[in-house]
Amino acid sequence: MAEQISWFPIADDADITPEVRALFEKMQEKLGFVPNVLKAYAWRPERLIKWRSHYDDLMTGSETLSATEREMIAVAVSMANGCLYCLTTHGAALRTRLGDPVLGDRITFDYRRAGLDPRQTAMLDYAVKVAKTPIACEQADVQALLELGFTPEDVWDIVEIAAMFNFTNRLVSATGMIPNAEYNAMGR
Amino acid sequence: MAEQISWFPIADDADITPEVRALFEKMQEKLGFVPNVLKAYAWRPERLIKWRSHYDDLMTGSETLSATEREMIAVAVSMANGCLYCLTTHGAALRTRLGDPVLGDRITFDYRRAGLDPRQTAMLDYAVKVAKTPIACEQADVQALLELGFTPEDVWDIVEIAAMFNFTNRLVSATGMIPNAEYNAMGR
Amino acid sequence: MAEQISWFPIADDADITPEVRALFEKMQEKLGFVPNVLKAYAWRPERLIKWRSHYDDLMTGSETLSATEREMIAVAVSMANGCLYCLTTHGAALRTRLGDPVLGDRITFDYRRAGLDPRQTAMLDYAVKVAKTPIACEQADVQALLELGFTPEDVWDIVEIAAMFNFTNRLVSATGMIPNAEYNAMGR
Amino acid sequence: MAEQISWFPIADDADITPEVRALFEKMQEKLGFVPNVLKAYAWRPERLIKWRSHYDDLMTGSETLSATEREMIAVAVSMANGCLYCLTTHGAALRTRLGDPVLGDRITFDYRRAGLDPRQTAMLDYAVKVAKTPIACEQADVQALLELGFTPEDVWDIVEIAAMFNFTNRLVSATGMIPNAEYNAMGR
Amino acid sequence: MAEQISWFPIADDADITPEVRALFEKMQEKLGFVPNVLKAYAWRPERLIKWRSHYDDLMTGSETLSATEREMIAVAVSMANGCLYCLTTHGAALRTRLGDPVLGDRITFDYRRAGLDPRQTAMLDYAVKVAKTPIACEQADVQALLELGFTPEDVWDIVEIAAMFNFTNRLVSATGMIPNAEYNAMGR
Amino acid sequence: MAEQISWFPIADDADITPEVRALFEKMQEKLGFVPNVLKAYAWRPERLIKWRSHYDDLMTGSETLSATEREMIAVAVSMANGCLYCLTTHGAALRTRLGDPVLGDRITFDYRRAGLDPRQTAMLDYAVKVAKTPIACEQADVQALLELGFTPEDVWDIVEIAAMFNFTNRLVSATGMIPNAEYNAMGR
Repeated sequence: MAEQISWFPIADDADITPEVRALFEKMQEKLGFVPNVLKAYAWRPERLIKWRSHYDDLMTGSETLSATEREMIAVAVSMANGCLYCLTTHGAALRTRLGDPVLGDRITFDYRRAGLDPRQTAMLDYAVKVAKTPIACEQADVQALLELGFTPEDVWDIVEIAAMFNFTNRLVSATGMIPNAEYNAMGR
Repeated sequence: MAEQISWFPIADDADITPEVRALFEKMQEKLGFVPNVLKAYAWRPERLIKWRSHYDDLMTGSETLSATEREMIAVAVSMANGCLYCLTTHGAALRTRLGDPVLGDRITFDYRRAGLDPRQTAMLDYAVKVAKTPIACEQADVQALLELGFTPEDVWDIVEIAAMFNFTNRLVSATGMIPNAEYNAMGR
Repeated sequence: MAEQISWFPIADDADITPEVRALFEKMQEKLGFVPNVLKAYAWRPERLIKWRSHYDDLMTGSETLSATEREMIAVAVSMANGCLYCLTTHGAALRTRLGDPVLGDRITFDYRRAGLDPRQTAMLDYAVKVAKTPIACEQADVQALLELGFTPEDVWDIVEIAAMFNFTNRLVSATGMIPNAEYNAMGR
Repeated sequence: MAEQISWFPIADDADITPEVRALFEKMQEKLGFVPNVLKAYAWRPERLIKWRSHYDDLMTGSETLSATEREMIAVAVSMANGCLYCLTTHGAALRTRLGDPVLGDRITFDYRRAGLDPRQTAMLDYAVKVAKTPIACEQADVQALLELGFTPEDVWDIVEIAAMFNFTNRLVSATGMIPNAEYNAMGR
Repeated sequence: MAEQISWFPIADDADITPEVRALFEKMQEKLGFVPNVLKAYAWRPERLIKWRSHYDDLMTGSETLSATEREMIAVAVSMANGCLYCLTTHGAALRTRLGDPVLGDRITFDYRRAGLDPRQTAMLDYAVKVAKTPIACEQADVQALLELGFTPEDVWDIVEIAAMFNFTNRLVSATGMIPNAEYNAMGR
Repeated sequence: MAEQISWFPIADDADITPEVRALFEKMQEKLGFVPNVLKAYAWRPERLIKWRSHYDDLMTGSETLSATEREMIAVAVSMANGCLYCLTTHGAALRTRLGDPVLGDRITFDYRRAGLDPRQTAMLDYAVKVAKTPIACEQADVQALLELGFTPEDVWDIVEIAAMFNFTNRLVSATGMIPNAEYNAMGR
């Protein structure tokens, strides 16, 4: 029997829309499997496509805020929220991007003890503040990041990615999604 | 001098993309003004359009979960997070939809003391649990909502809307957005 | 049927004591209605009169700490405690005193984003510290307020008003008091 | 040099008002010393007299809620808030009233491990709920206490005393009051 | 009937091992009674002996961190955890060692208001940080204590004692241990 | 340059005591390396030996509470405290003992979503309650575990192991210990 990956209905293969199927195929090719979040979200195909479009745009690296750094934000926020699904999947993505499983795991468990430089530490400190005490955020926090060399676009992206993982951590936790077993061995 | 509505750059009128301009015009027509979240987000036009597309889909009422109930979730989550921007704007939307400013304000401040029926109270209880302690969510919570008559799609939407306002509450709080003064008098 | 305004007995009109009746009449004249806190408290008339005597003294403005500023403390503490009754009633009082519903609502929801000057912000920061982490209060906090120009009497009053709303927020929340519907439209 | 008992001015003996002096003398006679809260509050004599009038009324025992039980509420709330002044002074009062220093100290530190009966335990459970999570209070909590034999007046008093110690804990903590050394040996 | 001092079996006198009996006799001689923690732990004699060996080593004073200061750490951590057993027993030990019951009680309830010097206050601040937010501990905290004159061994001991009382507070709280009535009068 | 594994002095090889050296050699043989906790603790050799003696006794499996289950308690408590060192090292130990890296990682991140049976879930629920809210522990919690088939010794061990990891999580976090890089690949 297949493992239960959601507390909600799973779309029958026949009901997968073309757009969602294309997404499945892209991930199958990239990872060798279809992530459970896609399988579990596929019964609401328009939502999945819209969320994914926003999410993909956010996680694409720029010259000044790399895709790897975006994954660092993902795991730091997911640890603040204790999210099994995202810690597993984005921990794997971070290890893979870093090419350093030890560093990836350390950032996942406690980025402040991972030996990061002051710039990346400050980036994650603000991301975690956004996650834990958003109304305590101040213009001075933004200013401090700008002074560390982040562009305004970078700082906005730090905020928007942190906010996004507060969406995804909650969506997967409150719908009972379980990560694919393939992730645990990735990037090791 | 115009009030500061964000800690980030505001797009010059000349730089507004056609898609964003269309959104501005739609809101100008509907509300009589352009919401500050759109003005403050417009310097990142692709993100704004993608987020908005997802958001609009989520907030559209269905036969079994009305647009008004979706606004109830918005304010309950925003109160859990203490978000000035969303309490002001979605408080206004809720008052308008209800046609009852007293009930709207009560739900905004403390939905548990607003005299709601058990179905709507349970809906908001789960939304607030999703906001505050997402990893404590259990399949039994979902089952309890189904037994109150919500469809699986409804319960998913309760979760996804609650998750969405954990995104928006954080995006607006950590970028310093201030709501338009017009909202405070709306729906009164 | 009249709305339930308390989980406790409501005094019959015949049982209202003269002192309480005088208080009712004073408020009827001032506001156009008798606040529910008085109706709900009237079954314990000696307590009501004694509490009210202390409370009225505290909320009376002085030259250096105005009645409006005392209402700011009321709403900041009530938001820290999430108190529907006091947010509704003192939000109304603050809007009325300010003659500015937008500013009043912003201070009520999040005084730190309302554009207040450093003196009033520091006043509310200490009031909220008194509410949330009283044993973390330090002599240095008092000294900092004195250096901002508050008199010793002002600082004491900030503390005593903050403490008082920790009393009233709890009394009304734990007895089930519901605010009069008239407040929501006041000061708009 | 006398110990500092407050971060605020202490009234000169010549400035003590007759009403406050009468209160000092009453306490001198009863306890053998003047409590520091009175000395520290005496520079604001009208406030002190008004607060004290309300407080004394609340702490007076009735047939169904004894003065000793009222002191139990005082220490349970003060432990929830960690208040040195009130733990010291009301711990002493409770030991004296009980004639049992061990039981008094146990209730002060952790009433749930003090061997109290279900009625007094439920009384203190509600008092601590009023202190810690007032907006979570429900009519069902009140009903449960009524079913244990408390009168409506008793339940109201449990709430009002719990609320009062949320006032006093904060007033003494945020003004730097230190309890008289005499209390520690009282009731032993 | 004897008071219940644990939720677990109490070793019969005949089953007390020689090592545990020696410990009982040592404490009987020192205190005049056998502490309940020993009676309640004696049914697992190897554990008791091993824990006690570690614990005794930790609590032995050195030239630069006295036994009295080690007891201060014990009560500060126990107050952070609200532990009836350890507040009672180590409060007694601290009063006895200080020869000052008032100071001992004040440190037990709130060391920050007990008039301690900056060195002892910093020592207890770090101990409480270790108890409440251990992952927020930083090398800068250790450095600050060294600069106040603590040796590296002292700082380590502050940490290890703080950690130990996080063990003992939890062991006694989760097994239902109740302190001997003799402690309450000790050191007065 | 060797990685910094502690904020405290590291014992020179010449200063390692024979008992500690024996411990190093035992672990070298078992794991292929000496755990950093031992290297970092070795400058206080008596303490290390005494703690280790207690710890080893606790982690040894019995017929009714296996060594694997003891490691489950270790990771559940360490996740509650967010401890990088213990999550890394005991996560590795749990994966190895289970022979199932996916299950081991899931229990480490969120045991409640790992598909454990009611007996092991209840065991970890109590361990986490001991970690997070020890004074809320009740005799009824102990009774419930006995009714699930745990012996009194098992329940005591669940408590004592949970308490022990509240010691170790704090010792390693507040002294700056960093886990050996070898752990991350273990048990995969």
